[in-house]
Amino acid sequence: MTKADAAMIRSLGDKRARTELGLFVAEGEKLVSELPGSGFRVRRLLVRDDSAVAGGFGVEAERVTAREMERISHLKTPQGALALVEIPRRRLPDAPGRELTLALDGVQDPGNLGTILRLADWFGIRDVLCSPQTADCFNPKVVQATMGAILRVRVHYCDLPRVLSGAGVPVYGTFLDGENIYGAGLGPSGIVAMGNEGNGITPGVAAAVTRRLYIPPYPPGRPSSESLNVAVATAIVCSEFRRRM
Amino acid sequence: MTKADAAMIRSLGDKRARTELGLFVAEGEKLVSELPGSGFRVRRLLVRDDSAVAGGFGVEAERVTAREMERISHLKTPQGALALVEIPRRRLPDAPGRELTLALDGVQDPGNLGTILRLADWFGIRDVLCSPQTADCFNPKVVQATMGAILRVRVHYCDLPRVLSGAGVPVYGTFLDGENIYGAGLGPSGIVAMGNEGNGITPGVAAAVTRRLYIPPYPPGRPSSESLNVAVATAIVCSEFRRRM
Repeated sequence: MTKADAAMIRSLGDKRARTELGLFVAEGEKLVSELPGSGFRVRRLLVRDDSAVAGGFGVEAERVTAREMERISHLKTPQGALALVEIPRRRLPDAPGRELTLALDGVQDPGNLGTILRLADWFGIRDVLCSPQTADCFNPKVVQATMGAILRVRVHYCDLPRVLSGAGVPVYGTFLDGENIYGAGLGPSGIVAMGNEGNGITPGVAAAVTRRLYIPPYPPGRPSSESLNVAVATAIVCSEFRRRM
Repeated sequence: MTKADAAMIRSLGDKRARTELGLFVAEGEKLVSELPGSGFRVRRLLVRDDSAVAGGFGVEAERVTAREMERISHLKTPQGALALVEIPRRRLPDAPGRELTLALDGVQDPGNLGTILRLADWFGIRDVLCSPQTADCFNPKVVQATMGAILRVRVHYCDLPRVLSGAGVPVYGTFLDGENIYGAGLGPSGIVAMGNEGNGITPGVAAAVTRRLYIPPYPPGRPSSESLNVAVATAIVCSEFRRRM
């Protein structure tokens, strides 16, 4: 492990370096061991002396010491394996929203984005559309928070107002003046738009929303300055779609 | 602002100092402005020159410069107001679970705990019981993530197995072999136990659970190594209780 190697791997914490190199970091033995068969291509695999991570990666594992792993890790508690993985080039789905799809309109916190990709995976949502203002899904903090879902859910950065308004499927969003979601009829297809942590849905995306929904607080109708975290709101909306199916 | 003042305020990032001094830090003009009338006692109020935070705190506001605020703040982006607030002494509710109550069995991530308190507030859950292994609700990161809910939801640290087994109300928990929550009959009272991020519910709490529930993935029954973030799972469970009421 050269100094330049370590600096390059550390630099992948920044989006600019990830874009330039076309690589992201996947850390932890559990996540790394899910790479073979995921469709992602591993460029380099760095494995600590005590790690049991086995083959199937298409590249030779490079042994590193505990100290070297500490130098390259993006985790507070470095683990036994770290892979440099190629960022896939993805085409937008042919018919976005034919299956239930999420659209993230400026979700900025990496933990929130990771949690949302993880719950999308749980609820069988395969495609997540993101506005360019949304956090980068290959940020190491996002990758970590997805708990492996980053290898299964396909994330597409795109012009949300354009894609949503041309989709020809119901586009859902949550608004204070929306319909109570618990009684709403919700079908198996459509796109659910979720907004930024502080500012909600942007005007361009709001204009493409065809069904306004509302998660009522309890007791209902109480005056409230409160709100829900965006990952929590996404979870409740997805749960409402899935319990009807 | 003396050096000792600044060091004392910074020290409140540690639980030991909070316990010793009986104080926690509330930051941000929105949160601070909700303190009057909340029942919490403000010991000191530090306000930046440009801040519009007004009176009603029972103490004189102390003006600080932007530079001083940066030195004492626990936030990445310091805001205009910071209060030192007395940690309340609370008695356990007389009849825990008579109203819907949460029990957190070792939730360790401050962001998760804050998000759970925020959603408890949204869903009208007034009491949250926590095992001593759960993160401290007065950790500055937790306070921040609650977005004000820390002033409304009452958090009680207690011996969960003892309190839950003696409560005389249904005690709910989520388990892989539980009943599908979407079809389950759920009443207006009871205690919902949620476990640690990695290890779930402890054996002592599991023994007190009387109703085992399950949030099914989609499609249902697929073999899965996936799971849900604990705040997300708590949100879905609370949403299922509240939509029936």
